[in-house]
Amino acid sequence: MKWTLSGGCAPDDIADNGNRFLIGNGYLGVRGTLEEHTKAELAAVNLAGIYDRVGGGWREPLNAPNPFYTCLREGEVPLAVPKTAPLSHSQCLDFRSGVLRRQTQWKRGGAWICISAERFASLADPHVLCMRYTVVSDSALTLTLAAGIDGDVWDIHGPHYGSVRQEAHGDTLLCTAQVHDGGAAVAVARKSFLSSPEETIAAGASALSEGFALSLRPGVPCRLTSLCAVYTSKDAPDPAASAAQALLPLMETDYDALLDRSRAAWEAVWETSAVKIDGDEEAERAVNYSVYQLNCIAPRRGGALSIPARGLSGQTYKGAVFWDSEMFLLDYFLATQPAIARSLIRYRIETLPGALEKAASYGYEGAFYAWESQEGGFDACSDYNVTDVFTGRPVRTYFRDKQVHISAAVVWALMRYLDVTGDVSILAEGGARVALECARFYRSRLVLPLNRGRYELHDVIGPDEYHERVNNNAYTNRMAKFTFESALYAASLLRERAPAAYAALDREMDIASLAEQIRDALSRLYVPQPGENGLVEQFDGYFALEDAVPDAVRARLRDPREYWGGGTGAASDTQVIKQADVVAMLELFHGEYDEETLRRNWRYYEPRTEHGSSLSACMYALLACRFGEPDLAYPFFMKSAGADIVGGGKQWAGLVYIGGTHPAAAGGAWKTLAQGFGGLTFGEEGPALSPQLPSRWKGFSFRFVYRGALYRAVITREGGRLERIKEMEGKENA
Amino acid sequence: MKWTLSGGCAPDDIADNGNRFLIGNGYLGVRGTLEEHTKAELAAVNLAGIYDRVGGGWREPLNAPNPFYTCLREGEVPLAVPKTAPLSHSQCLDFRSGVLRRQTQWKRGGAWICISAERFASLADPHVLCMRYTVVSDSALTLTLAAGIDGDVWDIHGPHYGSVRQEAHGDTLLCTAQVHDGGAAVAVARKSFLSSPEETIAAGASALSEGFALSLRPGVPCRLTSLCAVYTSKDAPDPAASAAQALLPLMETDYDALLDRSRAAWEAVWETSAVKIDGDEEAERAVNYSVYQLNCIAPRRGGALSIPARGLSGQTYKGAVFWDSEMFLLDYFLATQPAIARSLIRYRIETLPGALEKAASYGYEGAFYAWESQEGGFDACSDYNVTDVFTGRPVRTYFRDKQVHISAAVVWALMRYLDVTGDVSILAEGGARVALECARFYRSRLVLPLNRGRYELHDVIGPDEYHERVNNNAYTNRMAKFTFESALYAASLLRERAPAAYAALDREMDIASLAEQIRDALSRLYVPQPGENGLVEQFDGYFALEDAVPDAVRARLRDPREYWGGGTGAASDTQVIKQADVVAMLELFHGEYDEETLRRNWRYYEPRTEHGSSLSACMYALLACRFGEPDLAYPFFMKSAGADIVGGGKQWAGLVYIGGTHPAAAGGAWKTLAQGFGGLTFGEEGPALSPQLPSRWKGFSFRFVYRGALYRAVITREGGRLERIKEMEGKENA
Repeated sequence: MKWTLSGGCAPDDIADNGNRFLIGNGYLGVRGTLEEHTKAELAAVNLAGIYDRVGGGWREPLNAPNPFYTCLREGEVPLAVPKTAPLSHSQCLDFRSGVLRRQTQWKRGGAWICISAERFASLADPHVLCMRYTVVSDSALTLTLAAGIDGDVWDIHGPHYGSVRQEAHGDTLLCTAQVHDGGAAVAVARKSFLSSPEETIAAGASALSEGFALSLRPGVPCRLTSLCAVYTSKDAPDPAASAAQALLPLMETDYDALLDRSRAAWEAVWETSAVKIDGDEEAERAVNYSVYQLNCIAPRRGGALSIPARGLSGQTYKGAVFWDSEMFLLDYFLATQPAIARSLIRYRIETLPGALEKAASYGYEGAFYAWESQEGGFDACSDYNVTDVFTGRPVRTYFRDKQVHISAAVVWALMRYLDVTGDVSILAEGGARVALECARFYRSRLVLPLNRGRYELHDVIGPDEYHERVNNNAYTNRMAKFTFESALYAASLLRERAPAAYAALDREMDIASLAEQIRDALSRLYVPQPGENGLVEQFDGYFALEDAVPDAVRARLRDPREYWGGGTGAASDTQVIKQADVVAMLELFHGEYDEETLRRNWRYYEPRTEHGSSLSACMYALLACRFGEPDLAYPFFMKSAGADIVGGGKQWAGLVYIGGTHPAAAGGAWKTLAQGFGGLTFGEEGPALSPQLPSRWKGFSFRFVYRGALYRAVITREGGRLERIKEMEGKENA
Repeated sequence: MKWTLSGGCAPDDIADNGNRFLIGNGYLGVRGTLEEHTKAELAAVNLAGIYDRVGGGWREPLNAPNPFYTCLREGEVPLAVPKTAPLSHSQCLDFRSGVLRRQTQWKRGGAWICISAERFASLADPHVLCMRYTVVSDSALTLTLAAGIDGDVWDIHGPHYGSVRQEAHGDTLLCTAQVHDGGAAVAVARKSFLSSPEETIAAGASALSEGFALSLRPGVPCRLTSLCAVYTSKDAPDPAASAAQALLPLMETDYDALLDRSRAAWEAVWETSAVKIDGDEEAERAVNYSVYQLNCIAPRRGGALSIPARGLSGQTYKGAVFWDSEMFLLDYFLATQPAIARSLIRYRIETLPGALEKAASYGYEGAFYAWESQEGGFDACSDYNVTDVFTGRPVRTYFRDKQVHISAAVVWALMRYLDVTGDVSILAEGGARVALECARFYRSRLVLPLNRGRYELHDVIGPDEYHERVNNNAYTNRMAKFTFESALYAASLLRERAPAAYAALDREMDIASLAEQIRDALSRLYVPQPGENGLVEQFDGYFALEDAVPDAVRARLRDPREYWGGGTGAASDTQVIKQADVVAMLELFHGEYDEETLRRNWRYYEPRTEHGSSLSACMYALLACRFGEPDLAYPFFMKSAGADIVGGGKQWAGLVYIGGTHPAAAGGAWKTLAQGFGGLTFGEEGPALSPQLPSRWKGFSFRFVYRGALYRAVITREGGRLERIKEMEGKENA
């Protein structure tokens, strides 16, 4: 299998390539644009977990000033792709090592000019970005080289920086950007070394940012090595000093050592994550590339941080954390790097105050987590997420206030973490409180309709966002039940395993009375069940809606950009849904239903599903495996695994960029491989397999970590076996 | 005061004039078009209480074949307005007597030709329509006269008739129209007499329908007298025979006698209804004209019939009965012709089975009355009442399923009837059951949100239809409370006054347990109250909506035909409302609030009200009177009183005619006059006044009937006094 992804750079591809060739290390992501690109081409160094809001715009994560900015000019003409047509151009991502390379050749006048560059974001040291940029020509030429820190960053709802200060200290440039309100600051340092500078330039390296004459001799490469550091005010009291300090001891020759360290970190990832598929190289590459993408954005510094829905590929979706983290991303990390999984869980524990506040603001008790969560659990979700294409007016959407299944996702992840790792300490660290407050929320959200005498959940949105404000969404009600049960379980586990922590919590929140309320809620909660035809109704009245298919809805659009859901959407009054909803519920609780029920519902809902979300395909793939049809699962698995490596997809909604990477699809692909085709479970007796192969596969293997030990799962046509490879070192794998 | 309404007939006015010059008698309404008009000009003889539906179209009332069709031709040229431009043309409605006249003069070649016609629908005999049509010229001329029964009727969702049979028997034409499914039939007979026929025509009168030569002599008028009868299969087993039979004994000379009888019936109306306003002739005329319109459409034959929202002016709004009847029309009839009020109440009693069925279809108990009620309580309201102007797609609206305040309106009217007439027999005739079943409905519609521990009404639409699916609409919750209280009261009154009827009802529906449920509902029902600022919030979250005014919303429209409400309407997410909502609630229950609260809410809501419904103005007028500002009330009163006499307003929605008369505005005008400016109440001690005059009025008087006696209320600047004029005859006024 090739561990590389290559591509050219047609103007149409630039935005897409920015995602496909992304490098990152969880602290930041650098879009896979070219060195000469600026915000016009959506170049960005996207930072994790630091946000800003300007005026009435959306709060969104900061993009750091770009230290890779390097542009060669022949007179006034920039040697830039695609503006100045090259002879040849290619980009190549080595996703085994996280190194992105480009090579571009031009014929200018009689001269041949070639630029090669290589860059990486160190997986070993999150603040470090490195680049090598080489120019060679067959002729004696004087070109202008500008190599600075581009502080004119791309913003969707910006500009975020009120001041951008550029300084030069010897061979080091320093750019400090401060947001308008004087709050967050981002500092970027770039230390550059030119090969044989005495032969090629007159002025000092400190002039690099301004552009200076570069005298090339025929056939003699000129190489610019840049070692860069990024710090923010969340990392250090004086980020500029920290960034400068970080580079101080570094010499040009450190580039290779830094690359080696990063490569080794990537190898450690692959040790727990590499996948082999015998007989399907395309699938093998897609899954490993998905793993690469997941690791570019995974928070590796402990603490409490989660992953935005578009990873670190930009400001799309406000850099906010959605339920994707819990329901689609968690399992991969849990099975390969439990410390990262812990960070995701801890993020929700730390943002509990925001969830309590949100519930209170809507008149409910307990914890209602943010639909689009930023720092502190602030819900960045607007009440108006869609613009009407005909009137240009914002459309009231209810994602923020009605998509209550988010709190259950948080509890789901907590329980998954607890089950797989056995790390009960998470409960005392706030996990038990989270589960109880989420249960309290659902309990307060219940209504008792007097005509039915049971508890129901009204006025919600399920995973299928096209149908707003429905009653008794099967997914949501079942997840509420799960939350109630989990809260009781978490409380009893805490009581048993950490009595002091339990006692302290009990003093604060009177667990006994809350548990009484939860038991009452459980005893009367309505959860939609399969009807006589075996089908679970997505919500009250769903089956009474017009029975249509996505193509029929599409044919009714008067404008291809119309929103399908909400008040007047073409899908709203039909059975056409955006994504897996009942199917997601059945996948999560598949053990409660017989295979025939799973199959019937899959067969009913799939033709009615638009798959308008990248979260949809993997749920269909997983469920098809649950009822023993891996070949039915296969195309959905491939769609999920290929979401980013194939690229394409919608990049723009009007004038707003909505493209980016699709971590949930990547996570879902891994889940389908391990849990669907592999049948991996972590039961009371430890890991087990129950494999089934798509017919084109001869076999496959994947790795995982379970309670401190590294395993390899090997699946062939004959069955599956687990190999315990070794004990892992370091407490983060305990 | 002139008891007439005059007008010309510009092409733009034809649809409007059809409403303004309407004649009718409650059995049918004849649009005020001209004799030569056909469906192209929206000529129609609209029938009360008989409906048909064709294919997937809307169910709507039938228009009878038009027996007034009469057209004079000069060669091929029709002497028709406005096609053939006249010298002069006028229509004049004598609304004291219900007689519509027209006169049109043409100059054709050298000849002067004049057509005069007069028509009435007998208020004394509902099946009878009469017309006199006179032609005179200054020259000897031969014209062609066609005078038939136009069976090619105007339909909105037609054609309704599958067969239309024309027959001639001597001087009588007979047209029998049958709907497609062989169900309803409508028969119209027209018996015509030509003055001096031996001098003017060669063929027999039976040829009238086909058109025949009419030889006019200079200065000698030729007069066609037509006596017509209309019967339907709801009136008689063989409507054709009945129609023919009705005309058999009639001679030309009976015209005057018939007119006298009808005139006398109108005089009887005016005896109980004439209004005088000293110092404001415009207002006096508008109110009396409103009374005229109300009497054109009032069911006068006893039994159980109500009034469509557009009266008998056509098929607009499917000829369906809305809450208009109970909340806006009832009071006028109750105070002047209680037998008609009883018919309105009986209509709801008879349609209880439809209301029970509707509630059950939505999973509720009790009686959920039709939002657009037709025969048998069938709800003609569609789930899609609006077409999106941009996509042309139908928009899901929730009037039918969420506008639950309709059932309370039925109970409101029942209690009003009981209070004013003291006619307890209505309870035994089904009234008590209606009240109890409506209470049962609201009780089953309650939800108990566990976070608030009180009963609430969720997911409703209040009178303001722009805001759909709201929780705790103040109007609706208060009306539910009223319904609960009324049901208990009706049951106890029935028990006391008609023990046998109570016992029978109790055996059927176990009143004691239901009463227990109702008392429980009452004890925990939430009814929004004025907040600290004195304002009642229209529904949960209303005050958090964008604070805008109607003009601001209008300015946001991209198409003037856009619907303002629903999912993406320009008003939906603002505080702009279609019509009185909290103000309507405060008007109905004004005794429960101090004047300052009434004033504050009026002042708050009025600038935010579009008054997009003709039901809005009178509520504002009435409430302004409640807090002692008759001059503030005055313009709203005039808007309500002038709704039809002034005309104008929106006639078309795209290709669908939505014009017609506005009975609710007419009823609201009378209510404002009597109850607002007059302060008329019927308390335990009988009728009383508490008057307040708009400053431009010197005084006013109106009449009413109370428990068998005719009264005149005379209000001057010095105060009001009641004169008991006489005892009424006939049990219908008891």
